[in-house]
Amino acid sequence: MSATRYTYLGPAGTFTEAALRTLPEAGTRELTPVASVSAALDAVRAGEAAGAMVAIENSVDGAVTTTSDELINGSPLMIYREVLLPISFAVLVRPGTSLPDVKTVSGHPVAQPQVRHWLAANLPDAQWESAASNAEAARLVQDGRYDAAVAGAFAAELYGLEVLSDEIHDVASPTTRFVLAGRPGRVSSATGWDKTSMVVWLPEDHPGALLELLQEFAVRGINLMRIESRPTGEGMGNYCFLIDCEGHLSERRVSEALMGLKRICPQVRFLGSYPRADQGTSAPLRAGTSDLDFANAADWLSRCLDGRGEL
Amino acid sequence: MSATRYTYLGPAGTFTEAALRTLPEAGTRELTPVASVSAALDAVRAGEAAGAMVAIENSVDGAVTTTSDELINGSPLMIYREVLLPISFAVLVRPGTSLPDVKTVSGHPVAQPQVRHWLAANLPDAQWESAASNAEAARLVQDGRYDAAVAGAFAAELYGLEVLSDEIHDVASPTTRFVLAGRPGRVSSATGWDKTSMVVWLPEDHPGALLELLQEFAVRGINLMRIESRPTGEGMGNYCFLIDCEGHLSERRVSEALMGLKRICPQVRFLGSYPRADQGTSAPLRAGTSDLDFANAADWLSRCLDGRGEL
Amino acid sequence: MSATRYTYLGPAGTFTEAALRTLPEAGTRELTPVASVSAALDAVRAGEAAGAMVAIENSVDGAVTTTSDELINGSPLMIYREVLLPISFAVLVRPGTSLPDVKTVSGHPVAQPQVRHWLAANLPDAQWESAASNAEAARLVQDGRYDAAVAGAFAAELYGLEVLSDEIHDVASPTTRFVLAGRPGRVSSATGWDKTSMVVWLPEDHPGALLELLQEFAVRGINLMRIESRPTGEGMGNYCFLIDCEGHLSERRVSEALMGLKRICPQVRFLGSYPRADQGTSAPLRAGTSDLDFANAADWLSRCLDGRGEL
Amino acid sequence: MSATRYTYLGPAGTFTEAALRTLPEAGTRELTPVASVSAALDAVRAGEAAGAMVAIENSVDGAVTTTSDELINGSPLMIYREVLLPISFAVLVRPGTSLPDVKTVSGHPVAQPQVRHWLAANLPDAQWESAASNAEAARLVQDGRYDAAVAGAFAAELYGLEVLSDEIHDVASPTTRFVLAGRPGRVSSATGWDKTSMVVWLPEDHPGALLELLQEFAVRGINLMRIESRPTGEGMGNYCFLIDCEGHLSERRVSEALMGLKRICPQVRFLGSYPRADQGTSAPLRAGTSDLDFANAADWLSRCLDGRGEL
Repeated sequence: MSATRYTYLGPAGTFTEAALRTLPEAGTRELTPVASVSAALDAVRAGEAAGAMVAIENSVDGAVTTTSDELINGSPLMIYREVLLPISFAVLVRPGTSLPDVKTVSGHPVAQPQVRHWLAANLPDAQWESAASNAEAARLVQDGRYDAAVAGAFAAELYGLEVLSDEIHDVASPTTRFVLAGRPGRVSSATGWDKTSMVVWLPEDHPGALLELLQEFAVRGINLMRIESRPTGEGMGNYCFLIDCEGHLSERRVSEALMGLKRICPQVRFLGSYPRADQGTSAPLRAGTSDLDFANAADWLSRCLDGRGEL
Repeated sequence: MSATRYTYLGPAGTFTEAALRTLPEAGTRELTPVASVSAALDAVRAGEAAGAMVAIENSVDGAVTTTSDELINGSPLMIYREVLLPISFAVLVRPGTSLPDVKTVSGHPVAQPQVRHWLAANLPDAQWESAASNAEAARLVQDGRYDAAVAGAFAAELYGLEVLSDEIHDVASPTTRFVLAGRPGRVSSATGWDKTSMVVWLPEDHPGALLELLQEFAVRGINLMRIESRPTGEGMGNYCFLIDCEGHLSERRVSEALMGLKRICPQVRFLGSYPRADQGTSAPLRAGTSDLDFANAADWLSRCLDGRGEL
Repeated sequence: MSATRYTYLGPAGTFTEAALRTLPEAGTRELTPVASVSAALDAVRAGEAAGAMVAIENSVDGAVTTTSDELINGSPLMIYREVLLPISFAVLVRPGTSLPDVKTVSGHPVAQPQVRHWLAANLPDAQWESAASNAEAARLVQDGRYDAAVAGAFAAELYGLEVLSDEIHDVASPTTRFVLAGRPGRVSSATGWDKTSMVVWLPEDHPGALLELLQEFAVRGINLMRIESRPTGEGMGNYCFLIDCEGHLSERRVSEALMGLKRICPQVRFLGSYPRADQGTSAPLRAGTSDLDFANAADWLSRCLDGRGEL
Repeated sequence: MSATRYTYLGPAGTFTEAALRTLPEAGTRELTPVASVSAALDAVRAGEAAGAMVAIENSVDGAVTTTSDELINGSPLMIYREVLLPISFAVLVRPGTSLPDVKTVSGHPVAQPQVRHWLAANLPDAQWESAASNAEAARLVQDGRYDAAVAGAFAAELYGLEVLSDEIHDVASPTTRFVLAGRPGRVSSATGWDKTSMVVWLPEDHPGALLELLQEFAVRGINLMRIESRPTGEGMGNYCFLIDCEGHLSERRVSEALMGLKRICPQVRFLGSYPRADQGTSAPLRAGTSDLDFANAADWLSRCLDGRGEL
């Protein structure tokens, strides 16, 4: 088994695999399915894989908290890429099965809320059985353990199943965001359309700390893209925050904000700067926040110290 | 079945039932176990129950997103009480089962991360099987479907099981916070040690909106206790926020802050003001934010309008 | 001498008189010149005049601190009207005087910095002599005490002088802002294009107090128009602030901001809400800050307290 | 006349001279009285003096706006030292003059408001005549032009006058702050108890700009010591701000704040970092704002870019 391979939540046929295969670099790597998000990341931590593709949030179900907690805790990981994948679920059954035959439905827990209403309307009496992945659910249906699986239609062929229905979403176009995580390494260059992720722990017993934290971004004109609170494990009411912001750590406005967080927070974990997967090529900056503006201000400062501020 | 009953996530023997029984009013009500958080709340919405006790967050695993989403979406509900319950898991097995016999372990998905490390160390090869509740897992062990259940030790007797181990927590003293939700009604009186919950949707395409939202609290000296982001379902990157703050809607600083949110946000859902379950009896207020301060300022304003501001 | 008269900084021929005569109500009043800003306001305080027209700031020289201090200290006054008057100075001399003859130039101290460069270029050796008003300077030139006066060209005829030059401004179009101050009384109705003035003392020894003060305005979408610091007289480093903001005290966003200041500051003196003198008829409001928005939010709050927040 | 001399507002016997003589370096310099604040600073600008001692604010009368405007406009100057001097005025008269004899009182305009109430009570009918300095007023009394001068008691002997009264202050212990200004040069080293002065122009037509400006300081834990608004001369309602803050430009929190201002404001003029004259030797810093904190955060940033953020 090669340390240059990528792991992902298996078995074959998961959306995670589909996301991984959108990356050009995946074409030259061994792709290894594993049993869980934690296993995928543990292989990276152990040096048995170069990267792990894991789901991090869904536009309907929100954060994949296992991934969040893996990124927050344990030995550090860094995000190098993100992929946005529209998630289109189908109900897969063994050939010949019809709706009234379905007593049990399986799928990943993240899938359940997205198809809750369809299930309530079409299979009100079927029992939901959580599986480690949607593809695993398909495999369990193949094995006869359950009657139906909620999975990508592309998994049907792989497991010898049929699509019973493929319009089962409560909400149009759910999207899952996946990230490729690896061991910490040199941050790749800015592309002009980047995102930076981090975990921030708040100073204890300090009302207004969250506001101060956000002001480190605001004062430098940086938009937040996502903020997710997670318990620190140190008792009810103690949270840390996973934050995604616009920009790249090599940009001055971003690095200054992160240094600001580092100074006021007991702990900050940098999770990487990487190209944004949403459409776009460059973000408009607030006046006065470009690297050139920072460089000019630094020049001016040097001149001020030397008595030549207005030369 | 009485409309004055309380529902909770069953079957009998769940931590939710234990939480519900800590409320004095539970002693005079019919308590009805149901199959899911959604079912518990749907019974309330349908007028078939007066209240539903549901878990809302855990000090280790974070938000119970099903509960969050139920409070955010659908017909409105309000929180009337909260309960904090230390969650002490045990591994329950059929009498005579020993560690090497355990091939499958079941429990509620929330339980899994809390005992992950114990399982990895003691049952590295056992398969995790999610159940609808910990008590349901115990029942499935009783039925012989699985070998071990992660549940409260108090469930052992109920299901004829034995405690194989009761020191299986990764982290000391995990606590789950439960809330009693009912249909919207008159807010009960302030006790001086209260909490207010709400859902806030951010103005679209408005960088800095989260900061402005937090400033509505900060400028009135109100501490936030919790903020949880959830997707709005309208595409990746759109979030609403479940917020708990100190204080009671009948207090001026709180009502003014909520009216401020109502004015700047496209939608605000008030989820109730209710007594805090953590220890304490009165929260210190920032100078100038008591109801008396508000009343005095309003008197002064009336006098100003009348030319008697300094009388 | 009538208690319905208006006082102003005399003698006849001052810019203050010219400003006063732009007010329609001045046509029906006795207008009485007095020797100083303090005397004009003291007559109002003593009930000997209904109003006093006084200069409060100049677009070149800044605040008229005597006026500021009179509004800050002593028995309360209120501003009822403001007037913006372009100040066009001329150099007035006795008939027959030419530039080389001018050894002394007199005028109000406020006038001096506005014509400093002209004097330096054209009368580098002339001595500046401060007078209580520009018109008084003209009178002293008439009396032969000084050789030239800096005053409004309209004062020439009144004092039998000639205009030696009327293009003497360092900067184009200086403007002086005058206010009509009276004893505190009922605030007149909002016109939709109003301004509110106040004095605010900061909490002692509280770094960041000025920022908090400004946030009371910002959080309610109110723009500041002017902020002037004045010493409190209680030792170096202690300041109070004269503040002008957009809007009228009868508007909710303004009244709520002022009540906020009243709560956090040891002292707030309301100085009036009155029509703006600059061109315009209505100010655009930030979304969510109109009186209707406030009323709707208050209605919503009442419904929330009653369990009908979403009805 | 030596280019190493210091100028000050003369004639001999002014408080400015007294302030200048408190500086050790004054003992080795030629001290030259000049006719005005502007003349004192012009000599510096012209290279005819190494420094000029000028009053910048008084604890009762506020800013000395001539000094403010000289620092804001024209070729740049820098402040190298500040002096706080208690200003104790006396009424000086020619020997033999008694209160009833005094028809005219002269003094610097800054002196007048500080003794206004004493004059109103004791010399209600005396005419105030402004002089270029208090010492000049004493000289004019010596010459018989006026009857009394408001000046430092130490000026009596110099001009052959007598002290008629020396308890004439409205408020106890007025203090004047003087600064020694020179041409821009290398900023001297931080002492740990320093102050930094600057002029900041706000972005045009940008409501909330003042708040943003203050947040550049607040986010870095820097207390403001003074803020003075002055008109820019570009029409009513346009102001720039003279700001004094704690700390020295060579400290990271201060330099980062000034660079922040430089980026968002159309113009910033650095006026110097110099030792504070008020008692104290070191200012307590907000956690996370020391130079060591900045250095540690910068180290961490470098490591993050290199994938070693947690090493």
